[in-house]
Amino acid sequence: MKPSDHVRAVQAFTRRELIGQEAALDSLADMPLPLYSRFAEAGLANWWVGEEYGGAGLGLQESVRIVSELAYGDAGAAFTLFIPILTTSMVGWYADEQLRKALLSDLVAGHGFASTLGSEHEAGSELARITTTVRRDGDELVLNGLKAFSTDTDFARFTVVVARAEDDPAGYLAVVVPRDAPGLTVDKRWEVIGLRSSATYQVSLKDVRVPASNALRGNGLRLLEVGLNASRILIAATGLGIARRARDLCLDYAKSKQVKGAPLAANAVFAAKLGQMEMQIDVMANQCLTAARDYDAIATRPDAGEEFLRVGTLKSALTAKMFAGQAGWQVVSTASEMFGGLGYTHESIIGKLLRDVRFVSIIEGGDDVLRDLVFTRYVVPVSKRS
Amino acid sequence: MKPSDHVRAVQAFTRRELIGQEAALDSLADMPLPLYSRFAEAGLANWWVGEEYGGAGLGLQESVRIVSELAYGDAGAAFTLFIPILTTSMVGWYADEQLRKALLSDLVAGHGFASTLGSEHEAGSELARITTTVRRDGDELVLNGLKAFSTDTDFARFTVVVARAEDDPAGYLAVVVPRDAPGLTVDKRWEVIGLRSSATYQVSLKDVRVPASNALRGNGLRLLEVGLNASRILIAATGLGIARRARDLCLDYAKSKQVKGAPLAANAVFAAKLGQMEMQIDVMANQCLTAARDYDAIATRPDAGEEFLRVGTLKSALTAKMFAGQAGWQVVSTASEMFGGLGYTHESIIGKLLRDVRFVSIIEGGDDVLRDLVFTRYVVPVSKRS
Amino acid sequence: MKPSDHVRAVQAFTRRELIGQEAALDSLADMPLPLYSRFAEAGLANWWVGEEYGGAGLGLQESVRIVSELAYGDAGAAFTLFIPILTTSMVGWYADEQLRKALLSDLVAGHGFASTLGSEHEAGSELARITTTVRRDGDELVLNGLKAFSTDTDFARFTVVVARAEDDPAGYLAVVVPRDAPGLTVDKRWEVIGLRSSATYQVSLKDVRVPASNALRGNGLRLLEVGLNASRILIAATGLGIARRARDLCLDYAKSKQVKGAPLAANAVFAAKLGQMEMQIDVMANQCLTAARDYDAIATRPDAGEEFLRVGTLKSALTAKMFAGQAGWQVVSTASEMFGGLGYTHESIIGKLLRDVRFVSIIEGGDDVLRDLVFTRYVVPVSKRS
Amino acid sequence: MKPSDHVRAVQAFTRRELIGQEAALDSLADMPLPLYSRFAEAGLANWWVGEEYGGAGLGLQESVRIVSELAYGDAGAAFTLFIPILTTSMVGWYADEQLRKALLSDLVAGHGFASTLGSEHEAGSELARITTTVRRDGDELVLNGLKAFSTDTDFARFTVVVARAEDDPAGYLAVVVPRDAPGLTVDKRWEVIGLRSSATYQVSLKDVRVPASNALRGNGLRLLEVGLNASRILIAATGLGIARRARDLCLDYAKSKQVKGAPLAANAVFAAKLGQMEMQIDVMANQCLTAARDYDAIATRPDAGEEFLRVGTLKSALTAKMFAGQAGWQVVSTASEMFGGLGYTHESIIGKLLRDVRFVSIIEGGDDVLRDLVFTRYVVPVSKRS
Repeated sequence: MKPSDHVRAVQAFTRRELIGQEAALDSLADMPLPLYSRFAEAGLANWWVGEEYGGAGLGLQESVRIVSELAYGDAGAAFTLFIPILTTSMVGWYADEQLRKALLSDLVAGHGFASTLGSEHEAGSELARITTTVRRDGDELVLNGLKAFSTDTDFARFTVVVARAEDDPAGYLAVVVPRDAPGLTVDKRWEVIGLRSSATYQVSLKDVRVPASNALRGNGLRLLEVGLNASRILIAATGLGIARRARDLCLDYAKSKQVKGAPLAANAVFAAKLGQMEMQIDVMANQCLTAARDYDAIATRPDAGEEFLRVGTLKSALTAKMFAGQAGWQVVSTASEMFGGLGYTHESIIGKLLRDVRFVSIIEGGDDVLRDLVFTRYVVPVSKRS
Repeated sequence: MKPSDHVRAVQAFTRRELIGQEAALDSLADMPLPLYSRFAEAGLANWWVGEEYGGAGLGLQESVRIVSELAYGDAGAAFTLFIPILTTSMVGWYADEQLRKALLSDLVAGHGFASTLGSEHEAGSELARITTTVRRDGDELVLNGLKAFSTDTDFARFTVVVARAEDDPAGYLAVVVPRDAPGLTVDKRWEVIGLRSSATYQVSLKDVRVPASNALRGNGLRLLEVGLNASRILIAATGLGIARRARDLCLDYAKSKQVKGAPLAANAVFAAKLGQMEMQIDVMANQCLTAARDYDAIATRPDAGEEFLRVGTLKSALTAKMFAGQAGWQVVSTASEMFGGLGYTHESIIGKLLRDVRFVSIIEGGDDVLRDLVFTRYVVPVSKRS
Repeated sequence: MKPSDHVRAVQAFTRRELIGQEAALDSLADMPLPLYSRFAEAGLANWWVGEEYGGAGLGLQESVRIVSELAYGDAGAAFTLFIPILTTSMVGWYADEQLRKALLSDLVAGHGFASTLGSEHEAGSELARITTTVRRDGDELVLNGLKAFSTDTDFARFTVVVARAEDDPAGYLAVVVPRDAPGLTVDKRWEVIGLRSSATYQVSLKDVRVPASNALRGNGLRLLEVGLNASRILIAATGLGIARRARDLCLDYAKSKQVKGAPLAANAVFAAKLGQMEMQIDVMANQCLTAARDYDAIATRPDAGEEFLRVGTLKSALTAKMFAGQAGWQVVSTASEMFGGLGYTHESIIGKLLRDVRFVSIIEGGDDVLRDLVFTRYVVPVSKRS
Repeated sequence: MKPSDHVRAVQAFTRRELIGQEAALDSLADMPLPLYSRFAEAGLANWWVGEEYGGAGLGLQESVRIVSELAYGDAGAAFTLFIPILTTSMVGWYADEQLRKALLSDLVAGHGFASTLGSEHEAGSELARITTTVRRDGDELVLNGLKAFSTDTDFARFTVVVARAEDDPAGYLAVVVPRDAPGLTVDKRWEVIGLRSSATYQVSLKDVRVPASNALRGNGLRLLEVGLNASRILIAATGLGIARRARDLCLDYAKSKQVKGAPLAANAVFAAKLGQMEMQIDVMANQCLTAARDYDAIATRPDAGEEFLRVGTLKSALTAKMFAGQAGWQVVSTASEMFGGLGYTHESIIGKLLRDVRFVSIIEGGDDVLRDLVFTRYVVPVSKRS
């Protein structure tokens, strides 16, 4: 399948399986795993994993298009399907060869999921404050702690846990843990206000033991930062897909709605709002693609892992997520006023889009956190300014 | 009970019955009628109806305070409890004496509700395009039509229907119809995205017959416009209450949350956001009270009904609703980013507040409609500009 | 002259002397003192000074209307004419009787100006950091320092200097200094980007000696805070006047300009913008008047001076200035896009209005300073929240 | 000179000739032609004209960088130096070979300027309503009319006039007219509020005669639309340069300014504002480059002229200008509040930046015009949506 075929196949999946199913997808019922199986059966799952592991090996630019299409249908589905990239990118660059091949080949072959256990309640966005620990015991590592928000974990094949090294106050490790490792317990699924076809869990680790070789190379916090590049760009792409859907809903509504004796679509105020929306959407799309291009430029290097460790968090990944969250919120807020009373009922999905798009500005670093990060990393050093 | 006692009693009700019950109130289950009975049993229902009918006769300034308190607890409860004012103000000024006394005294004595059947699907905000008709048949009026959005109707004692006079293309009537009139059917309750402890219905009228004396004096559209003054100001006050709640949630959260080694409440960015919020809330409160003062200045005149017919829609009622909707949305949007991942779950009610506050900019005239109305009525005539 | 006559007389002055003179008023030439003399000759100067001193004794609500009218014509003229209220309110409440009578009667009789020397370069908005000192020397006070921004000083009769008490690290005094006191030097007039018919100076004090009785009662910083209540509210009113002018310019332009075969005034996008503007202007006006009412409620008490010392900075004065600055900026920004290329030339005064309105959010506490102040004083204490 | 050397040379010119000269550049004195001569003497003028004419032949992506650098120093200089691209791109693609070579070679050799006479007072943004006419008279064309806004014309070598064909109601021509053609008169230079080192003129044409071969191929309005692609993208880049300058001014100020006992640069609110600014600037930069890439993809095709006629106005050029105007205004507005009173004086250039950046949203189509254009061209056709 060529990349463009892949995107088209995702569009077809979106039309077939997501559009029109919003009420069910939004119901926060049991995870719609059969849906995700059909995605996999169509050969679409884990599209970014390299061909050496049996994957399609698509780049992040194609991923932006794929995620935008999926999120056009349902942001929760998009999130469920792409968020393993956070995990696989860490494994792909920083696991030892044998582990890497085993995990990724198995993931592709089994159409599976992978997850990351990073965030904790107390630490919030200050990951250096996490209290989950890992200690060495012979040839094994032992993990203990409580992780607040982790998506896909319950049905994942494996997870990567970020933990504080007990014997090194400044040290953190990222450790691969199989889902069925004794001591790893999914405590609960969060009831979330949006993305309700996805599942985010609270997970506890009690004396979880894995071979020492399951530790990824490098400082765990830095690896997580590297991994977040891909997921933040795709979260931005989710905002793009939601905004595109909101725009199209407005246009569909405007065809039938009459205002002052003419279709709403002929109304100058409506045109002005849609023109502004389209500008915002176009800039969102370009910014997502720019960030993806920056990412791909590194990811396709032979020394990608080392280069990413050097670079850390990509500036354009941060600005893409910030911008998509802010512009997406504006687009959907504007759209949500257009439908009159109907837009305030379940007859319209605009309420769902509002709840869905909100997540872009919240997860993997709220805007306050990212503004501070951009300032420290990319404004204070004169040479890093745009 | 003095006005200030009344406000305090409402605060107590809010703390006792609403705060902490948000999940239940937000569940869109059967209408929480027992809750509203307890409000009535505390002597608080229909607080604005005049003492001559057995009511407390509070003015709109007190009503703003009462509604802000109720909405602090639950906006749906606030809306359910105040929206009859739209109906009773039309009845109070434009029904003939006998009907007026009977309806209002009975309403107060029975702790009842009243509703208005105005909006229709096709007409939307252009009420002159409504298609519900009323025709004279001997001493009776016969009504036929379909009304899209009407709150409280199912459990109201009576409703006021705005209809087109069949024999007069330019004429509209507002007609009192008992809830149990044959031919008046509640078709369905809308599933709404916010205000879910309130109930808004689609209602059909099929050959509904009432005595001709049930018609209110004057053009039905103009009467509706007069009635909307009170309800629009109180919708604005609902936005105020929601914004106040969002602010207090932020402060509660900030006491416990640590950021960079200090409580969030000591963080300068947090302080800046809360200072900005408080400014917006203070201006919202003042604007609601200013509009209420304008309203009370007319409502307390002996010729209030005639003066309101002359004035029509109060400028400050329009600007209060517009401003409260916009500023309320900004306040709650800002707040909704503060709680990190928890704010995206049902652990927090911030998602409910977002859905609730959205209604302020949508019902009884979206901002596009009101901007146009302000322009035509209050900008084009030079002397009406502020 | 009744208060309403006073407002009308100011309107006439505005039409006669300000409107149409914008290019000259904006030229930053020598201060247009003859203009201000004609204002005084019409009996309009220092309108707020009490009748016991020969003044008109108008309240702050009338002052809001007067300042809005003046600023409609020229914001610099408005500022020049009302800013002495900052000084006279401190003198009126906190000077000893003899001094107070002498200063205020002389001011009224001589149609004079008064100024305040508060802000300093280093201290900025943190007035506690000022370095100007005052020390006691026998029956005299000796002042030394450099004051950064002080309006009207060069042509004022007297000024009030806020200074640090040399013998008391926590103490500050506010001291009356005649303009012609030896050692008080006007160093330069600032070249400002807006309000260019006003004059703000840098002033130095070198061994300036005044009688000890020239010290006002109370802590100088607190007195200044009290005095700023009136001036901040009137700065907000200046923003209101500028916004009203911008709106009217848009409407004048829209009458003649054709867009898509119809006058711009008939264009729906134009109407929407003007409707939004009018809402903002109406809320600005109401908020200014609410703050002025709060002020007048204290200012008319027999113990006004003491009550103001207790209250300090009025919440509504802070929120009025913040809101007027922000909404005024939005209104004029929107207006400044309406005139096409002509609006970018000196054919239009919209560029002047942009520069003028900017000052509202900058002087007497920028928004960052006021947000922090609102947070500390009016959000942290639960009972002070709106 | 390699492209990157060219950019560096422009940076050096900016530092040497523009930074620090803002007061002079902003004085609206005689055009600073010696300055522009020094730019040319450094081999930098008309950098985009092809090597076949002796030019450097840089693409639009390099041009974005060059213009951003120039505008960092002075937006008026940037505008003066790049706006001939509007003219030369029309000439380059649509003039007959002999004329094209003569004009462009001469322009490069003589370090000259070229201008366009398009906009008229009455027509405003509706160019189809222009009233300047062109008629055929034997082998000549005769032009008559009044053109409102035309930059560089007085010192240009030639201009391209867009005119209505007298004998064809739907026809428009774009005609090359030498600056010294009899009948072409520069009526006046506009006094503008920003970009004051540039010069925009009102120009009249009275029986101006040129050879018929001076008419460019194709409909004059369409050619103008094609030409505006380059200039709109570079206007956006001007906004980028101004925003970058405003950001750096904030950082310079923050190093020395103390707030609450620490440098402003260590203040969390300051960091948050700068982080947000940097995000906006980064997105502006990427959007300008994306639009330039779209442009270069066509401009480097052998059939560029035909392809541009087919495409007309580039979507990304429209969205780049809209976004840069809006984000630039936000960045500079935020910056303009940071400097306290000093920012309101001529000690700071922030007031100049505000006036300069305003032009981005006004010229070559205000946002209202562009929103409508985006809606019609890129939203109504489903396949053109982003």
